[in-house]
Amino acid sequence: MDEEVLELAGRAKAASRILGATSESMRNNALLSMAEALIGATTSVMEANSIDLAAARSAALSASLLDRLTLTPARVLTMAEGLKQIARLPDPVGEILEEKILSNGLQLLKMRVPIGVIGIIYESRPNVTVDSAGLCLKSGNAVVLRGGSESINTNIELARTISSAATLAGLPAGTIQLIPSTDRGAALTLMQAEGLVDLLIPRGGEGLKKTVIQNARVPVLTSLGGNCHTFVDDSADLQMASDIAFNAKVSRPSVCNAMETLLVHRGIAMALLPSLVTRLQDAGVEVRGCERTRTICPLVKAADETDWATEYADLILAIRIVDTLEEAMEHIDRYGTGHSEAIITRDTCNANDFTSHIDAACVYINASTRFTDGFEFGMGAEVGISTQKLHARGPVGLRELTTYKTIVTGNGQIRV
Amino acid sequence: MDEEVLELAGRAKAASRILGATSESMRNNALLSMAEALIGATTSVMEANSIDLAAARSAALSASLLDRLTLTPARVLTMAEGLKQIARLPDPVGEILEEKILSNGLQLLKMRVPIGVIGIIYESRPNVTVDSAGLCLKSGNAVVLRGGSESINTNIELARTISSAATLAGLPAGTIQLIPSTDRGAALTLMQAEGLVDLLIPRGGEGLKKTVIQNARVPVLTSLGGNCHTFVDDSADLQMASDIAFNAKVSRPSVCNAMETLLVHRGIAMALLPSLVTRLQDAGVEVRGCERTRTICPLVKAADETDWATEYADLILAIRIVDTLEEAMEHIDRYGTGHSEAIITRDTCNANDFTSHIDAACVYINASTRFTDGFEFGMGAEVGISTQKLHARGPVGLRELTTYKTIVTGNGQIRV
Repeated sequence: MDEEVLELAGRAKAASRILGATSESMRNNALLSMAEALIGATTSVMEANSIDLAAARSAALSASLLDRLTLTPARVLTMAEGLKQIARLPDPVGEILEEKILSNGLQLLKMRVPIGVIGIIYESRPNVTVDSAGLCLKSGNAVVLRGGSESINTNIELARTISSAATLAGLPAGTIQLIPSTDRGAALTLMQAEGLVDLLIPRGGEGLKKTVIQNARVPVLTSLGGNCHTFVDDSADLQMASDIAFNAKVSRPSVCNAMETLLVHRGIAMALLPSLVTRLQDAGVEVRGCERTRTICPLVKAADETDWATEYADLILAIRIVDTLEEAMEHIDRYGTGHSEAIITRDTCNANDFTSHIDAACVYINASTRFTDGFEFGMGAEVGISTQKLHARGPVGLRELTTYKTIVTGNGQIRV
Repeated sequence: MDEEVLELAGRAKAASRILGATSESMRNNALLSMAEALIGATTSVMEANSIDLAAARSAALSASLLDRLTLTPARVLTMAEGLKQIARLPDPVGEILEEKILSNGLQLLKMRVPIGVIGIIYESRPNVTVDSAGLCLKSGNAVVLRGGSESINTNIELARTISSAATLAGLPAGTIQLIPSTDRGAALTLMQAEGLVDLLIPRGGEGLKKTVIQNARVPVLTSLGGNCHTFVDDSADLQMASDIAFNAKVSRPSVCNAMETLLVHRGIAMALLPSLVTRLQDAGVEVRGCERTRTICPLVKAADETDWATEYADLILAIRIVDTLEEAMEHIDRYGTGHSEAIITRDTCNANDFTSHIDAACVYINASTRFTDGFEFGMGAEVGISTQKLHARGPVGLRELTTYKTIVTGNGQIRV
């Protein structure tokens, strides 16, 4: 165990006990101070970032990774703006979820309270440092951050800036902390800090998420992959089906709410597939199909069992023709990861069968799966998507960063 | 891995996909049929029970264990009555938790749905077989039961009876299943059936819970112990403080919501402790106290660090005198298990400080911690208490056996 990380998590735990009782205005003022401090620290943040960028260039990191790492004054401003937006979101803490008076006179108040200490493990984007700290603080939680080694200097400077602004604004020291070590052992200690870390959220690619799930001993909230399907029923509007399928695959193929397999009812396959496949291929999509798909579109590669189970996260699409809605749902039961599943149909019965049967965080009728997102859902912000069934399912926003406690007020009641 | 258990869990998973879409009346009818079937099977259940009792007697099990094992026609009737009561509880499935229309016209419905497959691991009381199956079925979940070896014949007969009644009432086969093997390997397989078991709930003593927590790879909902405190503030009503403390310790010392340590403000210790300690000792309680307590009550044994950390679950009580409310809260922060904590006070500010600071499932003002219970809280029934912060905290009733999904209805929306 990494002693420094445990000490840091212990400080976070102590801070969380005070944070839970802070007022909304105190937390919002801290967020605004942090935003101002960030803008004021643009130069020092850029200096730290240039050290990371130099190291990244000499390590010959990819252009896309370099881009994710790079901060500009405009990007710093965007981070500060993000904090101000978080300050404007409604406060989840203290909300009364339920209130009742028992026949013996006891008053029960079920009140929303912060979870306590949240650990965030993330990869190269330095903006996650600021964004995660903001969301945790708004929801009354202390946060322990663990960023990627490529952005360590930038992250240290960002965390130092916002953490000291939060303390100056009256919040307890230990509210926002960053693990300065890039050791694997430090990350492992955070994942296993039972009793100190109440919730761990990995933000990044599937590899990071899997590592966290495999090693964590503290509760984890995350998505276990997004093998998302769109099923085109034979009653579907052809143009709508084509537009939604195209959008679900092409608009941002790398994200978890993108479609990976298109299921098509045999009754509409001939009418839909030739033009849709051409449209997808023209957009650079590699299409792989079942035997029946290849009868209609002979130039399409053959898809096999592996394809149905793969989350490509890329410009690749598997297509399978099915005989019935039931066959489509069985396919999704078998290969889906419980993230986002869609049906395109004009038949209300089929739509209802689909939404009642499919076991996923988000089930769509006649819309693109790409909408599964905290901002799109009007939650204001998110720290990720959960495909878990316990605690939170779908986008994880401020409310999902809280728990509740029951306050029982009596006047001497004893149990007989 | 035990193949039979995996097959059984697989059948439960298949059943759960159908169960989630059943109507409230269908599930309620099944519960009533199960109740009738139980009454009709009284003779065969008693016969199976007599086999278990004979084995228990030759194994020289304790009288209290024998009592827990023993069924009578009246006890069978009580189980049947329990199922009828569950049928009368409000249906949690299908409740709309949130509804909104986004500016792009998408309609979002956040709907309460069953979790899927729930595993229940329990000890000697056969009524848990019937009670757990009823609660899971009511909330639309399939259940895989694993009872103690002492009651295996009784459990098999009970499960056979209610399971076939449920199937006859139109519910899918696999809705209620019992693992007929009493092997440790079978239990382990259930705890690690990732992808098949959505939630595991241990019902029984602390030893069982710890075994489940240590070995489970599927999500677990349980209490990690109940080291509950009552703090008597110096403004407390003396008689109320004495009555509540006595009730919290003596009414049922073996349960998790019983008080284990009494914290007393030094300003009220002299007035409260001599008579309260005598009252407790007269009721058979062994009292252990800090140095200051022993100055006031010299006959009390010395308590040490171990006592503060121990959940006696017995007629033993630790007493500590503190200088301030803050010291009491620090003690609870350090030794509490987040279950139920109480303050006895006439000072509203102190009461508010206590409820806002204390991080526990249930925080009491002027009442006995013994009320932490699903029935007492008006939830109708419970499968246990959770001291976890995620998903459910406090009593776990029907609602806590559900999750939600978001149904998104559009008319062709794509994400730009």
